Amino acid sequence: MALIVQKFGGSSVANADRVRNVARIITETYRKGHSVVVVLSAQGDTTDDLIEKAQEINRHPSKREMDMLLSSGEQISIALCAMAIEAMGYQVVSLTGWQAGVNTDSAYSVARIKRVQTERIQNELDKKKIVLVAGFQGINKYGDITTLGRGGSDTSAVALAAALHADLCQIYTDVDGVYTADPRLVKGAKKLEEITFDEMLELASLGAQVLHNRSVEMAKRYNVNLEVLSSLTGNPGTKVKEVVKTMEKTHVSGVAKDKNVARLALIGLADEPGTAFKIFSLLAKKNINVDIILQSIGRDESKDISFTVARGDSEEAQKILEENKDYIGFKSMEANNQVAKVSIVGAGMVNNAGVACKMFEALSSAGININMISTSEIKVSVLVDERDADRAVQAIHDRFFNEFGSAN
Amino acid sequence: MALIVQKFGGSSVANADRVRNVARIITETYRKGHSVVVVLSAQGDTTDDLIEKAQEINRHPSKREMDMLLSSGEQISIALCAMAIEAMGYQVVSLTGWQAGVNTDSAYSVARIKRVQTERIQNELDKKKIVLVAGFQGINKYGDITTLGRGGSDTSAVALAAALHADLCQIYTDVDGVYTADPRLVKGAKKLEEITFDEMLELASLGAQVLHNRSVEMAKRYNVNLEVLSSLTGNPGTKVKEVVKTMEKTHVSGVAKDKNVARLALIGLADEPGTAFKIFSLLAKKNINVDIILQSIGRDESKDISFTVARGDSEEAQKILEENKDYIGFKSMEANNQVAKVSIVGAGMVNNAGVACKMFEALSSAGININMISTSEIKVSVLVDERDADRAVQAIHDRFFNEFGSAN
Repeated sequence: MALIVQKFGGSSVANADRVRNVARIITETYRKGHSVVVVLSAQGDTTDDLIEKAQEINRHPSKREMDMLLSSGEQISIALCAMAIEAMGYQVVSLTGWQAGVNTDSAYSVARIKRVQTERIQNELDKKKIVLVAGFQGINKYGDITTLGRGGSDTSAVALAAALHADLCQIYTDVDGVYTADPRLVKGAKKLEEITFDEMLELASLGAQVLHNRSVEMAKRYNVNLEVLSSLTGNPGTKVKEVVKTMEKTHVSGVAKDKNVARLALIGLADEPGTAFKIFSLLAKKNINVDIILQSIGRDESKDISFTVARGDSEEAQKILEENKDYIGFKSMEANNQVAKVSIVGAGMVNNAGVACKMFEALSSAGININMISTSEIKVSVLVDERDADRAVQAIHDRFFNEFGSAN
Repeated sequence: MALIVQKFGGSSVANADRVRNVARIITETYRKGHSVVVVLSAQGDTTDDLIEKAQEINRHPSKREMDMLLSSGEQISIALCAMAIEAMGYQVVSLTGWQAGVNTDSAYSVARIKRVQTERIQNELDKKKIVLVAGFQGINKYGDITTLGRGGSDTSAVALAAALHADLCQIYTDVDGVYTADPRLVKGAKKLEEITFDEMLELASLGAQVLHNRSVEMAKRYNVNLEVLSSLTGNPGTKVKEVVKTMEKTHVSGVAKDKNVARLALIGLADEPGTAFKIFSLLAKKNINVDIILQSIGRDESKDISFTVARGDSEEAQKILEENKDYIGFKSMEANNQVAKVSIVGAGMVNNAGVACKMFEALSSAGININMISTSEIKVSVLVDERDADRAVQAIHDRFFNEFGSAN
């Protein structure tokens, strides 16, 4: 008699058959005697369709109204899935974000969950109902609907699992686990049985797109047992935990690629303290996240700063920086959207100096030029030209996983 | 500086151009210095599309989940219209039913508004914002979303106008007012400048489909000034009031047709007190409204009762009655969906005995058989075969409005 939170993404509920399939998975879990809380995303392309409708009317709608618009997508999903479960003869209730007590801050379109008031969900579980919750959305202190940003349904699921002290949080996607690289792109990619939160965090933030990184951060913080698995195959998935059994064996657990990257460079900055602060506080104020930062060594009393942002933020970032050109004090700005970030991730990496070297060697052998490098305890990322990205991933994956049939 | 509530139906917001057109009407009103609260329906066929999605998954979904599903349609409309108004440079905020404080009872899919808590709307108006409210929906005491049933957005608009003590409630539709008959069907139909609440009530409940009858009832009870007008033409519409200037001149203000009718007959009932009560309390419990009732004069210690219900309720009504056959005590049941109700409405009618007679004569001349008759102070309705309905309307309209070029 466990409490299990299950999350199904947009492709898992894309049409009536898929919704029925999801209803089957949910009711099978319920029939085993578990309490089940389910988080759903909007169906298939609903969110994109709604964005298109908005764009037809206003190229720059307010984020509040976008959240009002987009949150309808998940509401449709939970109602339809509830109907499918009703048709199978089970007691079920669907709840929007606000009904489920998901309280967020007021940063429309990128809201963060502050607290989940679980009374309503708990009441419904006590009545032996299956509870469906609209993912991706919550309510702020003004009583307005907020959304958590792309991939926010994963975060919804983990937040509910944490607040309800769930025994397990299962994230169902269209892949059946976490792979050493994207299996759709890379020959020889292998499914991992287990992975640590930290590795998963790096993979998520590096564009592996299996789990939203905020959800993994939250799972790590509240020690929520995560499992990533497929709603279509029924195969066992990948478990995400604090410590994994197999950790010592491998140094590198995966190779990831992120094309949602743009590189900006400010040329000819004054070589004095506070310049970086000026740049990045301006961007932070507009909720623009900066990833890799590279500062050239100062010479001739000037320096250059390059950094990467999400591609969707590139235009706004350029605008902000251009408007503050005198305040920051730079000569010129360069922007490049034709880049991609390729990374290797592994908890064992920090103890193995040869890993980064091996990665660079693989790229060099494939004739791929490296623009920027960034490293952490458990990852090495390089920025390459976008057209080289897929070849880079394959080359690195071959080097680490396929030469001798197993990792390293 | 008046407070005006405007309501736009689904066809008025069916696509981006229509939404922009509605935004223009709203902002023009606002620019004149008025406070504006706007109620919107779901776009065009959205509600029907959602119903179809539901039907694919569950032929008999719970009404709670249907309300959860359908209420998303109006949420999409208000967000999109807010974006159009933002694009024109005005301050605007969209509110769902629950955000706007629309409290209803718990009869899912046919909920009635109990109270509108106007604090949030008032706050937004005080900030000089245009306020958009999702029509057709509210929230019940359990914190669940309810819908008001077909045409419920009219009721939302009138309820808001009443609660806010609005000076005027404008109902924008795809016709530019109330006509003596449906102008799409009847040659020579004329637009009325004014009409009384009572006449409008009869017309609405008789299938004129210009205004939802619950909205007119509510407007009458709270004395809300109504105006029906077109969102497309910009012409003056029809004013709906308690007393109208022109009332004395005409006896009949309009002819209406309602095809959403089914006739049920219970044959061979015991001729004893309480039989009618048994039948109609059973139906009332299931929220099935009964319209015309006709009871045959008792002979041979048995009687027959015929009555009409909305076509969509016919099947359920038959089921309920069949299940209670012994309790009610009838021999057999007949059902006929191939009927239509044709009615004339006019506040002056009660003082003019010849009106009903003139109507029957028109039908007789056209060779149309009358199945049932029902009269009130301001209307006469007849039930005819569905295939005769359009001819019946034209014949009656010709008789009252076209013989001498004007009414009567």
